[in-house]
Amino acid sequence: MAARKKTTKKTATKAAPSARKRTTESGRADGSTERLARTTLESIDEVAKDVYTQIESGRMPEISMPQRNLKNVKFDRKVGYFELAGNVKTRTLEVNSVKTFAQTVRLMALAKEMVASDDFATKREAYYVSKNWAEAKFNEQRESDTVLDDIEGMFAFKEITREHLRFVPEEHGGSVVGPLTVIDRDPETLEPIRSDCTAMGSGAYTVPSSVDHLGMETTASFVLAIETGGMFQRLNHHRYWRTANCILVEMGGVPTRATRRFVRRLSEDLKLPVFAFVDCDPYGICNIYRTLKVGSGQSAHVNARFCVPQAAYLGVTPQDIEDFGLHDATHPLLEVDVKRAKDALKNDPFFKAQPKWQAALKQMLKMGVRAEQQAFAKWGLNFVIEEYLPTKMKAAKSFLP
Amino acid sequence: MAARKKTTKKTATKAAPSARKRTTESGRADGSTERLARTTLESIDEVAKDVYTQIESGRMPEISMPQRNLKNVKFDRKVGYFELAGNVKTRTLEVNSVKTFAQTVRLMALAKEMVASDDFATKREAYYVSKNWAEAKFNEQRESDTVLDDIEGMFAFKEITREHLRFVPEEHGGSVVGPLTVIDRDPETLEPIRSDCTAMGSGAYTVPSSVDHLGMETTASFVLAIETGGMFQRLNHHRYWRTANCILVEMGGVPTRATRRFVRRLSEDLKLPVFAFVDCDPYGICNIYRTLKVGSGQSAHVNARFCVPQAAYLGVTPQDIEDFGLHDATHPLLEVDVKRAKDALKNDPFFKAQPKWQAALKQMLKMGVRAEQQAFAKWGLNFVIEEYLPTKMKAAKSFLP
Repeated sequence: MAARKKTTKKTATKAAPSARKRTTESGRADGSTERLARTTLESIDEVAKDVYTQIESGRMPEISMPQRNLKNVKFDRKVGYFELAGNVKTRTLEVNSVKTFAQTVRLMALAKEMVASDDFATKREAYYVSKNWAEAKFNEQRESDTVLDDIEGMFAFKEITREHLRFVPEEHGGSVVGPLTVIDRDPETLEPIRSDCTAMGSGAYTVPSSVDHLGMETTASFVLAIETGGMFQRLNHHRYWRTANCILVEMGGVPTRATRRFVRRLSEDLKLPVFAFVDCDPYGICNIYRTLKVGSGQSAHVNARFCVPQAAYLGVTPQDIEDFGLHDATHPLLEVDVKRAKDALKNDPFFKAQPKWQAALKQMLKMGVRAEQQAFAKWGLNFVIEEYLPTKMKAAKSFLP
Repeated sequence: MAARKKTTKKTATKAAPSARKRTTESGRADGSTERLARTTLESIDEVAKDVYTQIESGRMPEISMPQRNLKNVKFDRKVGYFELAGNVKTRTLEVNSVKTFAQTVRLMALAKEMVASDDFATKREAYYVSKNWAEAKFNEQRESDTVLDDIEGMFAFKEITREHLRFVPEEHGGSVVGPLTVIDRDPETLEPIRSDCTAMGSGAYTVPSSVDHLGMETTASFVLAIETGGMFQRLNHHRYWRTANCILVEMGGVPTRATRRFVRRLSEDLKLPVFAFVDCDPYGICNIYRTLKVGSGQSAHVNARFCVPQAAYLGVTPQDIEDFGLHDATHPLLEVDVKRAKDALKNDPFFKAQPKWQAALKQMLKMGVRAEQQAFAKWGLNFVIEEYLPTKMKAAKSFLP
């Protein structure tokens, strides 16, 4: 869970002398995990002291946090991800908000405890912990989730995320295979643990819910981020990662925060190009790919860390439907698809800033159909490995942005 | 993908002299993977020849398959899983069924191709492959899924499953950590690949969609099958598998076929006791646990392989709510919960055969509340590790059946 300076080394490997080996050091090596924990504890203290000082001086205490929605983000291609546009909401302690205020402070106290003891709570657990808070207990998890989001917003100004505060999601991240070794540490003994992602057989390495403390070593040339588990299985079974010398990441729909952060670190720390391989439909493009690349409106306060601005879109594109003769393996766009695409063209700062994407979405709307990545199976189960991916990879420079 | 004779060896390990090491050999060693492929190919040929012979002799060809629902299963505690009660449906080739009949035969041909080339298709891919079948193509995946289920039914008489025919689900199975080494093989080079499930850091080993070909080695004393990802993370982070010397399996709700088969092999081939740790609610008990232990009505034709008759129910039990003071961390049973529990008492052959379960479900209905495994967080995040699990494990013999 360390936001530390990453080193990138280039050394020759024994196994593949021509392949470049890229490395980031594990968090333990430079004490950055401990440093981050210290910073987090200090920030919690600062916010708490601020509230305390306001009360002491006889004022109603206030806490501020950024608004979290697509209307409060801006997109600059040079920056590369959704940034907060600056709208702030303020919560003042008054009769109506006294319970929420108390809950906010108690959850901050829980965060402090967890950072100090290197523990964590799922969002569900955080809800249950409150059951011992008498009047301040949450009645529904929806309430505690909202307060957690607000807390993350408050700390976003200090570049501290929910993960740093030790609140983690229930679900784990995507699956990973390929020439990558992940260096974790045993939470108890602190011994380093090396997971070789070429040695998972027909299984895979699972991205944990926090990834900043991981070290990474690779000899891969690029990362392929895949929408569906089915396609991931096919490429893994046929060892596409070996043929193409790449790392395969299964996103499983819209990638979780941990998966986005994991891919971001492959992109930023290991300097690997990242290509997305998703369905050609408005959900695949406007939700899955857009969130991977520039983040989402709802998490605008943490997008700087949880997106992959260098990612490019390999496919499936509307033009691929023409070029690879997929017409009879498409499905008509539903009303919800059309609405989503039109909404993206009109309101999404990312698509508004990208003329190539505007053309592609308009082409899809004109064609009136969508195509899944499995549609290539029409030409044979392994057409995707033998024809589609090699053909596309030859023109990687012309991928949609 | 081998249904082969498993060997169980007991040898001392260097690391823990007192721990028993239990091993199953990998499928490669005795050629059983190849043997199974041969049997599968022969069975496909037999069914196809049977249809052909019927046509040649001037009769309308018929194919028979078992009915798949809870009304067509029986439960005998000595057998230990839902068996087919014997109702059969027959499909005759006539004007109305000619398309389905053709599709059935074509999917069987695809299965034959895949077994011969050691490939597989997800159910979604199988649907897309049909797009090149002209008149016989499927219009929706629902249609191809139904035919695949029927085909599995036809072959169930020969103990051949959908996985043996190489049709796999999109999603992968649950996560696994603990003192277990899984021995897979590289699908291309056939080299053995060893995955050490103690060496996954904060990640985990993912159960692949087919597990019969895996070899396994362990020094664990038991298996804990856990409902939620959140609880799995907690037990993994605090290395409960080390303290308790067990294998942790995340089911993630109702366990997939692959996860059930994986746990079954831990139970049967490695002779490990299996304990389930799920929410105390009708869904956790009547769906998740029941399906893990005895299978489901819908998959009655394959339950013999895809369930864990030796599993026992560690908790959470209705009595635990009393014993561990969870009342203010419970939620009222919803109407759907009450309906599910009453339905299980009245119609589910498993619960009807188990007086202890009848008492427990009635107790839950009387209390009118449900409790999640995260509810223990009320007493502190690690109460579950420090108090609940050790207390329960002392009385493992009295677990619900």
